[in-house]
Amino acid sequence: MDLHVDNTIRRDNHAHAGEVINLFDQASLDKSLMPETELTGDSIIEAHERVLLATIEVVKVPHGYVGLIMLRSTVARAGLVAPTTYADSGFIGTLTMEVFNSNKWGIDLQAGTHLWNMVLVAAPFELDYTGKYQNQPQGVVGAKALDYDKDIWYYKDNIWAPALQSPDG
Amino acid sequence: MDLHVDNTIRRDNHAHAGEVINLFDQASLDKSLMPETELTGDSIIEAHERVLLATIEVVKVPHGYVGLIMLRSTVARAGLVAPTTYADSGFIGTLTMEVFNSNKWGIDLQAGTHLWNMVLVAAPFELDYTGKYQNQPQGVVGAKALDYDKDIWYYKDNIWAPALQSPDG
Amino acid sequence: MDLHVDNTIRRDNHAHAGEVINLFDQASLDKSLMPETELTGDSIIEAHERVLLATIEVVKVPHGYVGLIMLRSTVARAGLVAPTTYADSGFIGTLTMEVFNSNKWGIDLQAGTHLWNMVLVAAPFELDYTGKYQNQPQGVVGAKALDYDKDIWYYKDNIWAPALQSPDG
Repeated sequence: MDLHVDNTIRRDNHAHAGEVINLFDQASLDKSLMPETELTGDSIIEAHERVLLATIEVVKVPHGYVGLIMLRSTVARAGLVAPTTYADSGFIGTLTMEVFNSNKWGIDLQAGTHLWNMVLVAAPFELDYTGKYQNQPQGVVGAKALDYDKDIWYYKDNIWAPALQSPDG
Repeated sequence: MDLHVDNTIRRDNHAHAGEVINLFDQASLDKSLMPETELTGDSIIEAHERVLLATIEVVKVPHGYVGLIMLRSTVARAGLVAPTTYADSGFIGTLTMEVFNSNKWGIDLQAGTHLWNMVLVAAPFELDYTGKYQNQPQGVVGAKALDYDKDIWYYKDNIWAPALQSPDG
Repeated sequence: MDLHVDNTIRRDNHAHAGEVINLFDQASLDKSLMPETELTGDSIIEAHERVLLATIEVVKVPHGYVGLIMLRSTVARAGLVAPTTYADSGFIGTLTMEVFNSNKWGIDLQAGTHLWNMVLVAAPFELDYTGKYQNQPQGVVGAKALDYDKDIWYYKDNIWAPALQSPDG
């Protein structure tokens, strides 16, 4: 399935270079990204710049499959790098994708370009998605903070355990 | 399936650092890479250098599967990074792979080394490949320019549509 | 399947910046990494730093499947990058994962955090794993050197062949 890039972009906020971001703190995550701006015909992804982009397409993944999203071959040969991302079984929505320009030069990126492909691969053990990015609206969605009650285990009495299952909750 | 690196390499053309590359312009893409040179016993992938390499193997992907190509674990632990690449259902040919050295030191890369593995995963929704890299000859194949008639959508009257399907197509 | 990060970390040994590492030389590989240290509540992954981390979980992959391990979406949006890694059919053990901070700022990384997901995808052509990382102990396992008899092909009389299958062995 072809995936095309929508006309919005979120760039890094270089004012915060050198600081430290905490994955569990929404304010900390938010200040690392500039507000969403328009991706125009003259938008350049600068050398070694990292941006967040969105798909135009609303993806629907059938039960028992996951969608692997990868940059198309031509774009990867030109030096853009995106971590392989997967859309969960049962996921419905547009996708936010991270793209890093590994080149020593800029890349002229035009809205509407076919940048990624999605492949549906059989994953019969997967349960359907019920997470926080389901049915996300169009546009680029930044990171949502992790939760100290759900997203981290604690080490106590030589055992790793979730917070909610520990004796003192 | 083990994949071994062939004895050719294409390196970035640093003479063009700081310029801007256009994905739709073949001349622009071509000038970013040096011509293919030989990968010898003394070839170094420099710190933070990005190169294109080719497989010795001719890959054939059966109908209903895609081939996921990833660096083998040992090589990834040593700091080489390759975006996950997939070979389409029905694809036949050698593969061109991007490799980035994320280390602050060089890596001595010898032709013939087993660098990647390919895993065939079930992808029953995929149609067989008919694209421009089918049966590509041995050696490293650079990016082929995108096409303004096929590889980009245009936004008009609040709808995204391919060029060929728009009224003035 | 959720995968959580264990409380150990191996960082690059910057004393060797600018040198060249040989994938076939264990001493060369070893000197590029610092010894394993503890991942505490105050551990920072610095801007553009690359580290090796381990999973708490012991992964078991059923016959006929491979496990694809990817950073969870939230963490990728925050700018951490991990090459997609797969656990072989039949693999049992903890996993060592490479993580690169692509940001211009540090990331506060706490032991126990749910960093990755593993998806089991159908790969019926795969044979079960018998390699050198099976049943690896807890903690971060660095790269094990490649072997000139098994991990490289040689070009002779216009043919690529493994060392052990060539006439002079």
